[in-house]
Amino acid sequence: MKGPIIQDIIITPIATVDPPLLNAAGLHAPYALRTIVEIVTDDNIIGISEIPGTTDTNEALEKARELIVGKDAFQLNQIRDAIESHFDEETTSERGDAPWDQRKIVHVFSAIEVACLDIQGKVLGRPVVDLLGGKRRERVPFAAYLFYKYEGAGGELAFGTDPNATGWDAARQAEAVTPQGIVEQAVAMVKEFGNKSIKLKGGAFPPVEEVAAMLALYDHFGPDVPLRLDPNAIWKLETAIEYGKKMEGILEYFEDPVRGQENMAKARKALKMPLATNMCTTSFEDIPGSIAFGSEDIILSDHHFWGGLRSSMELAKLCQTFGRKLSMHSNSHLGISLAAMVHLGAALPEIPYALDTHYPWQSEEVIAGGRMKFEEGAVLVPTGPGLGVEIDQEALKKLHENYLKCGITKRDDLVEMRKVIPDWEFKKVRW
Amino acid sequence: MKGPIIQDIIITPIATVDPPLLNAAGLHAPYALRTIVEIVTDDNIIGISEIPGTTDTNEALEKARELIVGKDAFQLNQIRDAIESHFDEETTSERGDAPWDQRKIVHVFSAIEVACLDIQGKVLGRPVVDLLGGKRRERVPFAAYLFYKYEGAGGELAFGTDPNATGWDAARQAEAVTPQGIVEQAVAMVKEFGNKSIKLKGGAFPPVEEVAAMLALYDHFGPDVPLRLDPNAIWKLETAIEYGKKMEGILEYFEDPVRGQENMAKARKALKMPLATNMCTTSFEDIPGSIAFGSEDIILSDHHFWGGLRSSMELAKLCQTFGRKLSMHSNSHLGISLAAMVHLGAALPEIPYALDTHYPWQSEEVIAGGRMKFEEGAVLVPTGPGLGVEIDQEALKKLHENYLKCGITKRDDLVEMRKVIPDWEFKKVRW
Ligand SMILES: [Mg+2]
Ligand SMILES: [Mg+2]
Repeated sequence: MKGPIIQDIIITPIATVDPPLLNAAGLHAPYALRTIVEIVTDDNIIGISEIPGTTDTNEALEKARELIVGKDAFQLNQIRDAIESHFDEETTSERGDAPWDQRKIVHVFSAIEVACLDIQGKVLGRPVVDLLGGKRRERVPFAAYLFYKYEGAGGELAFGTDPNATGWDAARQAEAVTPQGIVEQAVAMVKEFGNKSIKLKGGAFPPVEEVAAMLALYDHFGPDVPLRLDPNAIWKLETAIEYGKKMEGILEYFEDPVRGQENMAKARKALKMPLATNMCTTSFEDIPGSIAFGSEDIILSDHHFWGGLRSSMELAKLCQTFGRKLSMHSNSHLGISLAAMVHLGAALPEIPYALDTHYPWQSEEVIAGGRMKFEEGAVLVPTGPGLGVEIDQEALKKLHENYLKCGITKRDDLVEMRKVIPDWEFKKVRW
Repeated sequence: MKGPIIQDIIITPIATVDPPLLNAAGLHAPYALRTIVEIVTDDNIIGISEIPGTTDTNEALEKARELIVGKDAFQLNQIRDAIESHFDEETTSERGDAPWDQRKIVHVFSAIEVACLDIQGKVLGRPVVDLLGGKRRERVPFAAYLFYKYEGAGGELAFGTDPNATGWDAARQAEAVTPQGIVEQAVAMVKEFGNKSIKLKGGAFPPVEEVAAMLALYDHFGPDVPLRLDPNAIWKLETAIEYGKKMEGILEYFEDPVRGQENMAKARKALKMPLATNMCTTSFEDIPGSIAFGSEDIILSDHHFWGGLRSSMELAKLCQTFGRKLSMHSNSHLGISLAAMVHLGAALPEIPYALDTHYPWQSEEVIAGGRMKFEEGAVLVPTGPGLGVEIDQEALKKLHENYLKCGITKRDDLVEMRKVIPDWEFKKVRW
């Protein structure tokens, strides 16, 4: 019963063109960083995965090499234990206050687990979803993910625009800083991708403006298109309650209006709508507090942060057990992450809320065959062995060159924001 | 990606010789009932499993046939959903007050899941443990499980004994109703199986006698052999505290001294030792109460009752999340259940406490190659594909004949007890 033995791990940092999207922590840089992982077995099977890219995580992955080389790619429990005990002293790495997650071990294990499940699937001739108990649905639904943004497409075009662009390509370059701009962005995204629900990344403008944007979306799309707003925890409790009440009956859920489980619980008691989080309950360690406080209705999981796909299935059971609903968070990402999200989404017990994805905002791809398709807002579960997607090595090379050229080594939306507003400061609680 | 398609399910009730063991609910009958399940695929792969046998469960399994025939044995999520929605109206079936569990759906799903994982393992050429993330240990440790008992070996010998028996075979026929008898039983079992910890099934005699037995065990084996007592929830809270205090520093854990999560929480606060349960927290539905009350330190899971092996892994994550420890409960069982327990035990994140098994009390076997071996109280994880054990069809036939002959259709320890003590009554709380 000798397995596919891991012989090597190839870690490739990449940078993908990202538009100037606004959020509570500042502004997206012209490139978003991802790290592409290829795990090679003795039989020359290659398992792949994708995680948020920072030099920190890449170094941790590099250190994990010695822990996994020589191991059977089926022995994920052993690999997890080895990584956890190796990085034990470094677990002080905290999630951080930013909207994104900065913990190392969960990223490292997610990268390795997904690549090993891809290997397992390829060895077994089975899609990854079958390693999670099998498909519960053929298509996985995603919400339209709107952003306040400055004009421009990102990348070499930086803050400029391509005047020849049409349709969504034009819309994704357009400025959107008003309710009208947000509605136009929504219309273009929904037209292109067919999403059935809409999320606005908030926390960028004063609450009165963001609520106005939600009301404008409601006016335009009507009650059949569920809406969500995510201020990334920078509203005061009073603000969240005051402005939350204006959106009762309009929001499908309110995402991280305030910071911390205790405040979330208070907002939840005061408001007549479900609260969702990917900021106050972001790890298994946070679950007891979530239960004690009653801090949210919906956990927006993310397999990159929850330690992989099998851990995410465990989180789903935990959510069922405690009456939480589960949906999915995203960062800027390409098709390997999307494929993993879709396999997981197909296995989850239920998807009461369409998942988040930044995917429409990226224009490049690292997978062969180009960008994955959305139909009616949903992605068809790949049916090939493993993740069912493969790396286009030419594309990977180009995206790695992007990385080398762009000079960015970690996500820092503050630095980007100051290029536009020099005295801009990040505030954990702003309004 | 067409899977091994389920073509048939063969449900064979069996009866295996069981000695006259005493517990809170009465006396074990001369035969214990199990049900052996064989799921046959279109490629003629046969996956097997074993569950506690009652006509009720067998009928439910029979009804589940139409739900699974034609399905891919990898699509366990779909199969689970189909079973859950089919049996929805019948979920009123409660665990019951007896020491054993009487819920139907979890038994049915466990039977089907384990057999399907056996099929998957056989298709993939992988042991079942690899479908649970892989082995964390080569051997799975079990405790010596002592019982108060009347003289006799059970089965056709009924309450008589085989005068030619020696060693454990003799000891397992001997009467054990005193501290001295319990110590002798422990010595014989530990000599035969090499267990490193010892459990006494209590609830059969007044607390003062059972505590005396524990003290006698402690005197004999010393502080290096962890001890446990399980009165199956029939002690009053005051009794549990009074007699529990006499065993502080002596018991590794105290199992279900009292009935219900609230009482367990009170006993736990009053006593300086961990409390374990397989009676007050026995399903995912019970977990929120367990967390709210703080009813136990250790959950004794049982894949037959928790909905299979993958659910048990989810339970393990849940226990880790809430600072519970996980160990394993058992009923009278044969080698197919033991193999499944061992695969699960090998995958669990940790085994802080040796698992329970009734296996030494059974003398027959349904698996080819005869009884599984214990070394130093532990069972080596089978390495063959699937569960790594196969049915001996001759043995199965004989055990099914036992079933037909013995006339027992469900476990009823009360009826058996009354053959010895005609006016005996079961009491939910006795002392
Ligand atoms: Mg969020
Ligand atoms: Mg018990």
